[in-house]
Amino acid sequence: MLSQVYRCGFQPFNQHLLPWVKCTTVFRSHCIQPSVIRHVRSWSNIPFITVPLSRTHGKSFAHRSELKHAKRIVVKLGSAVVTRGDECGLALGRLASIVEQVSVLQNQGREMMLVTSGAVAFGKQRLRHEILLSQSVRQALHSGQNQLKEMILVTNLDFHDEQKRRNLNGTLHELLRMNIVPIVNTNDAVVPPAEPNSDLQGVNQSVTFGTKSRVGMGGMEAKVKAALWALQGGTSVVIANGTHPKVSGHVITDIVEGKKVGTFFSEVKPAGPTVEQQGEMARSGGRMLATLEPEQRAEIIHHLADLLTDQRDEILLANKKDLEEAEGRLAAPLLKRLSLSTSKLNSLAIGLRQIAASSQDSVGRVLRRTRIAKNLELEQVTVPIGVLLVIFESRPDCLPQVAALAIASGNGLLLKGGKEAAHSNRILHLLTQEALSIHGVKEAVQLVNTREEVEDLCRLDKMIDLIIPRGSSQLVRDIQKAAKGIPVMGHSEGICHMYVDSEASVDKVTRLVRDSKCEYPAACNALETLLIHRDLLRTPLFDQIIDMLRVEQVKIHAGPKFASYLTFSPSEVKSLRTEYGDLELCIEVVDNVQDAIDHIHKYGSSHTDVIVTEDENTAEFFLQHVDSACVFWNASTRFSDGYRFGLGAEVGISTSRIHARGPVGLEGLLTTKWLLRGKDHVVSDFSEHGSLKYLHENLPIPQRNTN
Amino acid sequence: MLSQVYRCGFQPFNQHLLPWVKCTTVFRSHCIQPSVIRHVRSWSNIPFITVPLSRTHGKSFAHRSELKHAKRIVVKLGSAVVTRGDECGLALGRLASIVEQVSVLQNQGREMMLVTSGAVAFGKQRLRHEILLSQSVRQALHSGQNQLKEMILVTNLDFHDEQKRRNLNGTLHELLRMNIVPIVNTNDAVVPPAEPNSDLQGVNQSVTFGTKSRVGMGGMEAKVKAALWALQGGTSVVIANGTHPKVSGHVITDIVEGKKVGTFFSEVKPAGPTVEQQGEMARSGGRMLATLEPEQRAEIIHHLADLLTDQRDEILLANKKDLEEAEGRLAAPLLKRLSLSTSKLNSLAIGLRQIAASSQDSVGRVLRRTRIAKNLELEQVTVPIGVLLVIFESRPDCLPQVAALAIASGNGLLLKGGKEAAHSNRILHLLTQEALSIHGVKEAVQLVNTREEVEDLCRLDKMIDLIIPRGSSQLVRDIQKAAKGIPVMGHSEGICHMYVDSEASVDKVTRLVRDSKCEYPAACNALETLLIHRDLLRTPLFDQIIDMLRVEQVKIHAGPKFASYLTFSPSEVKSLRTEYGDLELCIEVVDNVQDAIDHIHKYGSSHTDVIVTEDENTAEFFLQHVDSACVFWNASTRFSDGYRFGLGAEVGISTSRIHARGPVGLEGLLTTKWLLRGKDHVVSDFSEHGSLKYLHENLPIPQRNTN
Repeated sequence: MLSQVYRCGFQPFNQHLLPWVKCTTVFRSHCIQPSVIRHVRSWSNIPFITVPLSRTHGKSFAHRSELKHAKRIVVKLGSAVVTRGDECGLALGRLASIVEQVSVLQNQGREMMLVTSGAVAFGKQRLRHEILLSQSVRQALHSGQNQLKEMILVTNLDFHDEQKRRNLNGTLHELLRMNIVPIVNTNDAVVPPAEPNSDLQGVNQSVTFGTKSRVGMGGMEAKVKAALWALQGGTSVVIANGTHPKVSGHVITDIVEGKKVGTFFSEVKPAGPTVEQQGEMARSGGRMLATLEPEQRAEIIHHLADLLTDQRDEILLANKKDLEEAEGRLAAPLLKRLSLSTSKLNSLAIGLRQIAASSQDSVGRVLRRTRIAKNLELEQVTVPIGVLLVIFESRPDCLPQVAALAIASGNGLLLKGGKEAAHSNRILHLLTQEALSIHGVKEAVQLVNTREEVEDLCRLDKMIDLIIPRGSSQLVRDIQKAAKGIPVMGHSEGICHMYVDSEASVDKVTRLVRDSKCEYPAACNALETLLIHRDLLRTPLFDQIIDMLRVEQVKIHAGPKFASYLTFSPSEVKSLRTEYGDLELCIEVVDNVQDAIDHIHKYGSSHTDVIVTEDENTAEFFLQHVDSACVFWNASTRFSDGYRFGLGAEVGISTSRIHARGPVGLEGLLTTKWLLRGKDHVVSDFSEHGSLKYLHENLPIPQRNTN
Repeated sequence: MLSQVYRCGFQPFNQHLLPWVKCTTVFRSHCIQPSVIRHVRSWSNIPFITVPLSRTHGKSFAHRSELKHAKRIVVKLGSAVVTRGDECGLALGRLASIVEQVSVLQNQGREMMLVTSGAVAFGKQRLRHEILLSQSVRQALHSGQNQLKEMILVTNLDFHDEQKRRNLNGTLHELLRMNIVPIVNTNDAVVPPAEPNSDLQGVNQSVTFGTKSRVGMGGMEAKVKAALWALQGGTSVVIANGTHPKVSGHVITDIVEGKKVGTFFSEVKPAGPTVEQQGEMARSGGRMLATLEPEQRAEIIHHLADLLTDQRDEILLANKKDLEEAEGRLAAPLLKRLSLSTSKLNSLAIGLRQIAASSQDSVGRVLRRTRIAKNLELEQVTVPIGVLLVIFESRPDCLPQVAALAIASGNGLLLKGGKEAAHSNRILHLLTQEALSIHGVKEAVQLVNTREEVEDLCRLDKMIDLIIPRGSSQLVRDIQKAAKGIPVMGHSEGICHMYVDSEASVDKVTRLVRDSKCEYPAACNALETLLIHRDLLRTPLFDQIIDMLRVEQVKIHAGPKFASYLTFSPSEVKSLRTEYGDLELCIEVVDNVQDAIDHIHKYGSSHTDVIVTEDENTAEFFLQHVDSACVFWNASTRFSDGYRFGLGAEVGISTSRIHARGPVGLEGLLTTKWLLRGKDHVVSDFSEHGSLKYLHENLPIPQRNTN
């Protein structure tokens, strides 16, 4: 084995062996020789990585989130990481970014080591003159002691000499102590390392295996073996692709930050199932749930409602724990959202019973029936979407509510709650599973471990069919950004307009503006921009609106046209596309209804827009032409809400243009499937010269059972 | 001005000035001082970038796609690109990846130059010893002449001396000739360059402006001015963010490949509108289209159908041009798809008239009516989705068909066709616009320039609401991968199953299998896996199926269980999840209907799955439990088709679970909006102590006018 160590003030010395390798990050590409295992194994032959000591002192991490506590990190680079894909020498960009990452981690106070691939050894002659790597590291670390460098050449035999091993061990420790990043360059081709063996020490054992081609072990098998060997010594291992251009600039730091990059090896069995297993359980549990009778699903929800009141004491006890742990760490409004009470649980139970009632006619409803030919009938029926991922913030009452919606619609559910509500969520989830188990579908609702990163969950596109964020618009935006290939249902913006037409009734306007803006200004369906017909300026109606806004202490921002009409204007708006979410309102002047529509299309968010007028023609023109999810005439923007629309249980409000738009009821959690029942029907019978003709008769649909 | 040039065999010499700067790629971050302009301007003071010559010889590129022809590329790096965001020295990773990209482009035979930021000059002392950059370049280029290096220090005054300018010019040219990448390091702080001026030459003009703070010009303004100045000299400029971690590894090569990275400056006015402008036109045109009467939309489609036959000669002439240009470059089946004929145009016109007929009841249909309170009525109506992007391959007949679907559903449309059908698409699009103009909505359908990259279009999420790829499943997969934040409607896989139950009728099975597998094996609804109940093995029914498959020359792949039942098995499947798309079929044995369902859920693609049985209970169990878009009983998989389902115009087949699933008719191009008509209704009247109560009465829906 050939080792190349850049050192500073090298001297052989004896000292006690230190516990070694707290965490190994093995970083490599997926497409090169499995040299990882050789190095990991070869450490077993090196005295300064004595296995017993590691075993005594070290214990591998149970979860990625603990990797950030790693004190010592070894980064092993495969040949494909170090060299360019086109075989044009070193991959400078990658190498330098690895050096940068190593430097970042070292500056955080960690002990860092680089192990480079054997392939580099062949470039040693060249590197000796180029000193590229060493300088990069030195430069990045601002080391003041960048003087001496010397090659330490060791071969396999050296490791079998007790004294030499001690010296090497001491050298590396001294280098680390001096804040230097040792680079160990290995070359399998020169001296293949030995098979892992219980008889590890002191024996000049013969070489029993070597490169991949010689023993036929390669790919993942070798890597997994290496990782398991390292784990035995209490070393956690992550194997990741180091060549992907989009991630290689931050893959090492990402791993240390606990992100789900590559494969994490841990000796400690995780407490529960993995999130992938939970996804599978939610899928199959959901499928079972979907085939239950609607009455059975309603029964589960009723039982859950009962449990919420019956098990009140246990729930409140768990909630108290959360509150105690959050005390002093969360602001008062957040603590209030976190806290449960008897009355909250009671109204939650009432809400659940409403969901149960509205669920009766959701799954399996026939939407369309067609006779395609004699004895060939087509049916389009509603079915659940599949597996939902619902991400919610501190409010634990969200859990039973969302679970009831999923149960009512026959969907499997992955729930990801906030860390601060962990105790409350756990008990509420247990009660949900208890309710589900009355019909044997306990696994349909899964609570994801709080340690799972939301970003990682949003990438499980094979597992999750729809993501629903429940929380602030910031949460929705974050999720929309993080979701890869999975649709997200939600609204991130609500810039609602009210256009006051020249034919508006004086009595109505003030009432409508006050209700839309002042009733609950933080809601997404609150008014943000008031568009006023220019003929209304300096009329009593206009003065009345302004007076009301003054009384209600609404801060007015003037649009540019409005400002130009005024002698003394209030502050001009920074942007006409602003969601204030507070007692603030933008006022702008428009020439007519078309001008208002153009403004709404330019600056609105297609959420909810209102016209106030007594002229029916103008109103209809507005209703037809405004391209928003909700368009109202002489009604407050605040009606834009699933409950107020009479949709029963409210899933949310969607500003998406496909699938569901505007306030979404249970129907938003459903899709359809097509059932075709025939008697030996083949397509070729319907061809030009076939014996059959398509009938395509619409058949009556069973009347919808609406409440 | 301080210049630092690594040279090889430097000698001053006189030679004729060469035309300079064919293409400048100015590469910088968005957050640093606008030093770009200073350099670009300062070139005006350097004789070897004489403006008149550039003007005479050079002409900037009109389109990004031409950038790949750039012979000489200057890469200017801003300070923020060169240095780390945390102010910990050089950004090694970025720098090295830039060097790699420069090297790649140089190895393609281009003349490359690097201009580094002034900030680097302050690190000159350090760099002198580190020689990091020069070595990286040298290493990457495998230069054999990496010996001499020398500093050339010049100041502003030097450029005003004719002889010195000539020498510097010659030096740079000689360096380029010797395949060396000159690195020009500039420092504004030392010598601020002069204001651009018509009096550029030979004058020792006084310095009139300097850094940002001195003249107050910065940010985009300065960059744009610099770009315009460069353009005057016939130099194309791209300004891009060089610090984004996801792109910095390939931003320069991406720009040269013509990708839409950063801002492209061109003096040549583009022939038509930009794709962003086209998106705007499609949006507003589509909105106008949506407000037409259904009869008017149908009229447009009928007119287009007429034009297809009336203007047949012109269309076929354009198509002939495409065919001639494609001759020898396209394979015979592709040429066949590209070619139009009188009969193709006639049947296209017939199809269009069918779409017109089915469009009558699509937009504006009332789906739900609710009386929320007295005089407060809610309506949910169908509306177009907005702007569709349809990407299609060589078949030009796709264009009028897709245009008719968009017109029928009131959507704006961006069409992106294949380059090989450019002439045909152009005339067909002109005819579409002619038809649209009869109701003044000419701009609703836009044909995107063939030079636009599909990948770039798929990122216009503010502009496009739905992408529909029409073509091979590879195209669909590519588009699904490329689409950022825009839903894609399509299916990428069709792994359809047929389960032959123990109670299957002997007569039916063979007919159904033959029709499903052999009628059109390339279709996505063709059969791929036959699941046979184990009781049927070694029965006459089984032999009959195998005999039929042999006659039809279907190659059989045995699933592992099936193989284990046979003495001499056919080749075993590589994967049970295979879409053969050919006369090949996987056969596997299952124990019962549940086993069949489990197999389908594990290996299927949720497209179309069939049960063949005479037992109604088993059939219903299968229909209810299989979680696929289409589930059939005793019918061929091939019925899974919009036309056969009687949906009228077929938009496609969707394997997505949201919005539209299975065969999609015009309804898949629609969404809904909510209209609320009130008389001064406010939410606060419905509060606990308010005067009003919600009624939520379902009102009758106008009966659907079905054909």
